[in-house]
Amino acid sequence: MSGKLYGLGLGPGDPELITLKAHRILTTAPVVAYPAPDTGPSFARQIAAGYLSPSQLEVPMVVPMRVERYPAQEVYDEAAATLSRHLDAGSDVAVLCEGDPFFYGSFMYLFERLAGRYETEMVPGVSSIMAGASAFGRPLAARNDVLTVIPGPLESDEMQARIAASDAVAIIKVGRHFNRIRQLLEKMNLVESAGYLERISLPEQRVLPLSAVVEDSAPYFSIILIYKGQEGWISALRPSQSNGTRP
Amino acid sequence: MSGKLYGLGLGPGDPELITLKAHRILTTAPVVAYPAPDTGPSFARQIAAGYLSPSQLEVPMVVPMRVERYPAQEVYDEAAATLSRHLDAGSDVAVLCEGDPFFYGSFMYLFERLAGRYETEMVPGVSSIMAGASAFGRPLAARNDVLTVIPGPLESDEMQARIAASDAVAIIKVGRHFNRIRQLLEKMNLVESAGYLERISLPEQRVLPLSAVVEDSAPYFSIILIYKGQEGWISALRPSQSNGTRP
Repeated sequence: MSGKLYGLGLGPGDPELITLKAHRILTTAPVVAYPAPDTGPSFARQIAAGYLSPSQLEVPMVVPMRVERYPAQEVYDEAAATLSRHLDAGSDVAVLCEGDPFFYGSFMYLFERLAGRYETEMVPGVSSIMAGASAFGRPLAARNDVLTVIPGPLESDEMQARIAASDAVAIIKVGRHFNRIRQLLEKMNLVESAGYLERISLPEQRVLPLSAVVEDSAPYFSIILIYKGQEGWISALRPSQSNGTRP
Repeated sequence: MSGKLYGLGLGPGDPELITLKAHRILTTAPVVAYPAPDTGPSFARQIAAGYLSPSQLEVPMVVPMRVERYPAQEVYDEAAATLSRHLDAGSDVAVLCEGDPFFYGSFMYLFERLAGRYETEMVPGVSSIMAGASAFGRPLAARNDVLTVIPGPLESDEMQARIAASDAVAIIKVGRHFNRIRQLLEKMNLVESAGYLERISLPEQRVLPLSAVVEDSAPYFSIILIYKGQEGWISALRPSQSNGTRP
């Protein structure tokens, strides 16, 4: 009998923001797979590290990080083939996913290759945009607000139109688009309504008004939250939440 | 010394989708408060029920459910006054929230009354839209999709414009607007791209193509997901996920 495939959402980074369900599966699955960059550690594995045991087989799936380009599909063909061998051998396989697996996650590439052939269960996770709103101490969206989630690479004119039409906005995957987006928000007179977050829920988290960011760039996992209805909340950010420059 | 206020996101309904952090606070807080309707059980308390102990003091905050109208602010004034008495007495207070506390949640009304006076910590939770995508087995959004979250009460012309401008859409708080929204999506030729979900992650969960819904109404906690890029996925919903009519 084939093993079962799990897509495990691990939340934004704090290992305590894993769900009880993801924790149960994470600690019992015989095979644990995760995306890993060419060099350096896997963020998904870092979130889960404290829960893994030496008796579990770890399968890093190396996904070359190329700016602005989706990884070659052959990478996922190969990863799917590797996981298939474990599933065919009857082992359950837990694939670790940062945040939520179906919210802009790369797990979809494995899902579309494997879910038709193996029993598959998704475990949703806490998303960075929800965790970001909690870190800020302001609602992401309220009442009958329309909330728009915009990926940072979106071209500026289109981004402007989307922001203009929304009550609340979360811009994700800000990364190297940071300066362009900040200039756009300056043009739209929205900098004072925008907050910037990076490494949400981790010890090195930074949460500050966009106007206070001194750098010209941002890490890939950074977001900008805009709440047009309530300009005042950015200036009300408490000092303890605004921890200056990057370490 | 005053107690600490917690806003605890409990996720979409399955008690196993609580985070480890919410679980820790939930099981140790001396005072546990939750919104409750005039009659009937509190959904937030139901999610947490298995983790509560008789030694904890429970504080139901009765919030009359009025269709289409936000509860009178006096209700929250009174709830805040009640919680203040416990906080002033030095007890930590955990406020239970369905889903994520800052994603269209009513916790904001307590937050704005109490966070300035007491140490306050938010614990983000798994949102119903992420859990819905997992239940469907399709991404909520992918790559550089723009995702729009639209509250069901939004007026039809505006809703149509927002849907037309988005790659992926989640309509929340569908409830009594169900028929109007379905008719709008029929007009827009999007019914075949839309899925319907109610009571996500609970044993009575229903997940089915919008075209297969026979009722003319929906419960308040129901959502419609639209994924314009991939019409095929709705017809690919597996039979086990489409569990017919309401019990």
